[in-house]
Order: sequence, then C-alpha cells, then structure tokens
Amino acid sequence: MVMPAACALEMIHTMSLVHDDLPCMDNDDLRRGKPTNHKVYCEDIAVLAGDALLAFSFEHIAVSTVGVTPDRIVRAIGELAKSIGAEGLAAGQVVDISSEGLTNVGLDHLEFIHVHKTAALLEAAAVLGAILGGGRDEDVEKLRKFARNIGLLFQVVDDILDVTKSSKELGKTAGKDLVADKVKDLVADKVTYPKLMRINKSKEFAEKLKSDALELLQGFDPEKSAPLIALANYIAYRQN
Amino acid sequence: MVMPAACALEMIHTMSLVHDDLPCMDNDDLRRGKPTNHKVYCEDIAVLAGDALLAFSFEHIAVSTVGVTPDRIVRAIGELAKSIGAEGLAAGQVVDISSEGLTNVGLDHLEFIHVHKTAALLEAAAVLGAILGGGRDEDVEKLRKFARNIGLLFQVVDDILDVTKSSKELGKTAGKDLVADKVKDLVADKVTYPKLMRINKSKEFAEKLKSDALELLQGFDPEKSAPLIALANYIAYRQN
Repeated sequence: MVMPAACALEMIHTMSLVHDDLPCMDNDDLRRGKPTNHKVYCEDIAVLAGDALLAFSFEHIAVSTVGVTPDRIVRAIGELAKSIGAEGLAAGQVVDISSEGLTNVGLDHLEFIHVHKTAALLEAAAVLGAILGGGRDEDVEKLRKFARNIGLLFQVVDDILDVTKSSKELGKTAGKDLVADKVKDLVADKVTYPKLMRINKSKEFAEKLKSDALELLQGFDPEKSAPLIALANYIAYRQN
Repeated sequence: MVMPAACALEMIHTMSLVHDDLPCMDNDDLRRGKPTNHKVYCEDIAVLAGDALLAFSFEHIAVSTVGVTPDRIVRAIGELAKSIGAEGLAAGQVVDISSEGLTNVGLDHLEFIHVHKTAALLEAAAVLGAILGGGRDEDVEKLRKFARNIGLLFQVVDDILDVTKSSKELGKTAGKDLVADKVKDLVADKVTYPKLMRINKSKEFAEKLKSDALELLQGFDPEKSAPLIALANYIAYRQN
C-alpha cells in the first residue's frame, strides 16, 4: 500500500545526494564510503541519473501503488512533488547557498533553511503514509506538523552536538569531508542555533520541539504511534 | 482539463534544456537568444532550478487538473514520468553521450536515441492529451504511435535538411553553437540517417513515417485530427 511511496522517497533522497555531490554543488568525492556517482560515471551522467531517479519516483507511485483509491494517490503525488521543489528541498538549498557569507542570518532565516532542506522530505514521508494509509485530513495535518518538528529537531540537535562533542565522540574521522566542513564553517561563519540563541536556549528549543511533536501523536492508536515516538526520542537524545 | 498537463510538458522540456546547457553537458552559453540559466545564476542554481521544475510539473498536474477522474490523472502521471526517465528522455541522452566517437552505430541504435531523446516527450504530449481527454485505450495507443512516428520523422527530416540545405537556407547563423555542432560532427563523425541509408532512402523513410502517422489518425473525428495532420505535414515538409 505505502511501499511504492516509501521507495519513491528513498529515490528522491538519493537523487538529491547525487546532485548535491556534483562539483558545482558540494563537490564531494565520497558518499557512503564509495566514490560518488559523478566520480564513477562523469558529471553529465550524474545529472541525468538524478533526473531519471526523480522522474521514476513519481512513475513508481503512479504505476505500483495498489489498494489505494486514485484520488489519494493523486494527493500523495502532489504532496511529494511539493516537498522537492520551489516550496521544499530545492528552496532550502537555494536559500542555504545564497546565505553563504551573510552576516545577518537570523532565526527565521535559519529555520526556513532547515524546514525546507531537512524537514520537507520527512514531512512528505509522514504525510504520504497518512494519505495512502487512509488517514483523516486532521490526522494528516497532525502528522505533517509532527514530522516538521522532528525534522527541525534533528538539525538543532546536530548543531548542539557540533558544539558540545569532540570529533572523536561524534565518530567522525578527520577525512576530507570533515576538514572541508570545518574550513567552510570558519570561512563562511556558518550560522547555527547555539550561535544564534546560545547553548542552553538551543537545548530548551530542542526539548520544546520534541514535546510538541509527541503531543501531536496523542489520540493516535498507541501501537501505531509507538515507532514515531521512538523516532522522536532517538533524534532528541542521540549522542552522535 | 488538459492545460496543467500541457504546462507540465513545457516545464519538463525547459528543465531538460536547462540541464542540457550545463558545462558538463552541452556547455551552451545562449538559449533562445539569451544567456543560459547557469550563466546568469551559476551552475548550482541551474541544477536545482531544473530539479524544482521537474518536480513542479508533477505537482501542477496532480493539484490543478480539473474535470478528469483521478484514475486518469494517475495514469497520465505514470506516462509522463516514464517519458522522462530511464525509459525515455534520460535514456536517449545517456545513449547519445555514450555513442560519441563510436564507429559502429547502426540504424537500431540511431533510432533508439531519437525515439527516446526526441519522440518520448512528443509521445507523452499525445498520450496525456488522449488519457486526460477521456480517450479509449485503443485511441490512446494509436496517438502514441502517431506521436512516436512524427518524433522520429522530425529527426530524419532534420538530418536530410542538414545535408541538402546550405547553412544560409537553414537560417542558422554561424554562431558559437553552429561552429560547435560542425566541429562535433567532424570530430565524432556524428551518425545521421543520410549517412547510414543514403539520401534517397532517407527521404523514402521520412515519407513512410509520415504516411504511417497519418494512417493512424483515420477514424478520428476529422475536426479533432486536423491539427495533428497539419503538424505531421509541417514536420515532413519544412524547409528549415
């Protein structure tokens, strides 16, 4: 029922990584411990592979979803598409790129980037599951907000960990990526939650995002919401 | 009824041009007489603009199509997605790129490239119109074949004109693009229909494609098929 949509989300995540890794974007040579797509197949093929994967994600939902009424499939496709484009992932990336070197990035600006770049696909995952699973409109909207909260929570926790943990504790090796990240942080003075609201306020904000997320799950069948509660707690309390 | 799908096809065509023009692809500075997307906004934004446009094409069909049953919208989205990806446009481009410098390109190979790179979107346009317009399955398939034929016809005629007409008659200026094309033709010994089957056989093939296409339109309401007949004739008899 929801498996084609779940696969579609994986495809979209992967295509976003293939395009992100391109020399004109993050210029990464390695992804998941292996040479990136353009290192193996050249840049032109990497661009086309991402395009084909993006298109196939919609084909897969349209062609392979069974046991769901077509009106819900159309709604799901609309939601998924919106999470990728100029109101979703791509918007977050464009604003992120355009913000490099800016000194006046505020909280709203930072939240825009994370809500679009990180939370949008999580939101799509939750909303598509709800729509294709036959959820009521009000439940779809609750799950949308839940996912947006934990998406932002992920990023706030990431920023906190970057400040409070050593590289060793984070389990990151001092490879090319880390060095590049550090250099980028120093050069562009990358804005983070601890920088904008200090570490204690950032922790309070993370706690608020988590409790708001969990509150949105009240009223759902406990058996069904249990994995979502576990996910929120995992994101909130992860140590690396 | 079909307007959102028509707009979606324009978006997909445009995104394919934005990505095609990238330095890692055709490296074009001008498109439609204006600087290409990446020349104005940089490569990273051009990649993201194409991705966003591709996603929005599906969003637009899903959200804005009215007066059509959802099962037909789902079918249309499946068809459109297929025409872009690994069984459509992207496949044609990958094989085209991979064929550069090959000396053993035969007719099947050449046809694969053109059917995917040129005819696939035309096919999607015809098929989506037929599906969203409420056409019967057999009519959808007839229009699919019609579009594939005139898509291939377009390419065969293009190849013939390249051989039989001077640059002046073609109305092309000796700008960067033309020079680059000529150099590419010489260097890679680009395969064309006249090269593979000589000029007279190419003309016969074009005539056959056109008559097959027109035959597929028999049985349709003459008023509705008239623009399609005119299109086939225009493609067959254009002089530049």
